[in-house]
Amino acid sequence: MNKQELFEQIKKKRSFLCVGLDTDLNKIPKHMLIEDDPESSIFNFNKAIVDATAPYVVAYKPNLAFYECYGSDGWRALERTARYIVDNYPDIFLIADAKRGDIGNTSTMYAKAFLQRMPFDAITVAPYMGEDSVTPFLQFPGKWAIILALTSNKGSFDFQQRIIDLQLGEKKEEKWEFVYQTVLRKSQTWGTSDNIMYVVGATKAEHLETIRKFVPNHFLLIPGVGAQGGSLQEVAKYGLTNECGLLVNNSRAIIYASDDENFAIVAKTKAMEMQVEMELILLEKNII
Amino acid sequence: MNKQELFEQIKKKRSFLCVGLDTDLNKIPKHMLIEDDPESSIFNFNKAIVDATAPYVVAYKPNLAFYECYGSDGWRALERTARYIVDNYPDIFLIADAKRGDIGNTSTMYAKAFLQRMPFDAITVAPYMGEDSVTPFLQFPGKWAIILALTSNKGSFDFQQRIIDLQLGEKKEEKWEFVYQTVLRKSQTWGTSDNIMYVVGATKAEHLETIRKFVPNHFLLIPGVGAQGGSLQEVAKYGLTNECGLLVNNSRAIIYASDDENFAIVAKTKAMEMQVEMELILLEKNII
Repeated sequence: MNKQELFEQIKKKRSFLCVGLDTDLNKIPKHMLIEDDPESSIFNFNKAIVDATAPYVVAYKPNLAFYECYGSDGWRALERTARYIVDNYPDIFLIADAKRGDIGNTSTMYAKAFLQRMPFDAITVAPYMGEDSVTPFLQFPGKWAIILALTSNKGSFDFQQRIIDLQLGEKKEEKWEFVYQTVLRKSQTWGTSDNIMYVVGATKAEHLETIRKFVPNHFLLIPGVGAQGGSLQEVAKYGLTNECGLLVNNSRAIIYASDDENFAIVAKTKAMEMQVEMELILLEKNII
Repeated sequence: MNKQELFEQIKKKRSFLCVGLDTDLNKIPKHMLIEDDPESSIFNFNKAIVDATAPYVVAYKPNLAFYECYGSDGWRALERTARYIVDNYPDIFLIADAKRGDIGNTSTMYAKAFLQRMPFDAITVAPYMGEDSVTPFLQFPGKWAIILALTSNKGSFDFQQRIIDLQLGEKKEEKWEFVYQTVLRKSQTWGTSDNIMYVVGATKAEHLETIRKFVPNHFLLIPGVGAQGGSLQEVAKYGLTNECGLLVNNSRAIIYASDDENFAIVAKTKAMEMQVEMELILLEKNII
């Protein structure tokens, strides 16, 4: 899905909601558990969540860790989930939250796994290994790399918010920038706003104004609204562009909103509430 | 496997060789391909390589990308390979080259996947998201996180070798350090040399002397000898410690040394050649 098609979906659904499919068999409703069949337990739960929430959602984001911890059974559940979404909701943007990245020939294998063999539109990528670890994800038309920039966790202070000295570098008019800003500045040259997005944690909304100076047109994937404490209003205030430019993710507050028989209806209600809040924001900013 | 046990294996086998199981169905001998069965094709090849090379090897390192590009079939091949090695060669150190790392609850899921559900001794971890993305991998006795420090690829210049200004930070007696050195310095405080190793590319042997000032006692996993151009002699000169402290990885030059019927014997010969070179180095340095 290209950038224009994604924006069309956002306008059509009046939503920029991404739902994280962080499916944990210890948290899903007990009646959904099938003994000795983690694959079907995960898939059936995902199917119920997707069928209930799809009208309010522009993107789904399975988190790979939650599948890998069930081994190849989990991977089959992931494959079935991705296939189900693409077959039944072809206009949904599908993100593999996998945080991959390695030397070129290895990143090429990861890219093929997620963007070619499986029908994901995008994959999250860790930038530590630099250009040749990211560019293999940019070789597939209509597919995206979503590069970690400034994450929502406490550990973002350890390296991402360290100060890079630019006096010895290539941008002598500035004295310094944060590591995550170097990531934004350098990685832009590897692709375009049509194949690169960035992860920016919602708990870092105060940084969004600065981030928009670095990447005025790129879509940002914003986790951390809800369970991790970020505010949708703050994120929208500093992050929105004329083409929306935001995918705001929520996982736990939607998919685990209830653990009883009505979990899918409760999830639907939560997704709808977020869609309505987003619609008001989009209207207020004259984006729709 | 703890550090002392690993060192005992190194002394016993007179080798610090790690063989990378980067198993690519486009590169393995044609007679090993079973139609429509990537799982068995991969597993049978790995089994043949492992059975041939195990006497000369202290560690195997499957590269996850090469399994994931065959989806859940590839994951089953990975699971069978790991199980086969642990059941038949319990003294081998088993590394999942997965480059994982995410917020705490997600890293915990990855750690369970590789260090608990599957029998890996260690997993490679990308440090970009900081402390809480790494420490979940340090919670399993005898298991290890192998943190990316300075990698062997060209992209290591993009961020790892940027200059961090320390004047505004916590170490005012020094003016600056590289990003990868900040990673070495900070991450040491999250664990010990009994549960953390570092990835340092062999193509960066000139940095090893400096790296040893930051991490004098930690094991280093060194990829890039062979196909990527690194020199074993250079790596040993600057990287060896009294307890060896090195695992040197070779993938392609061993596992794809031949593509005919005798591939396993040729792989064995290549592994033995490297073991002999390593034995001479260990003797020369009075480590064995």
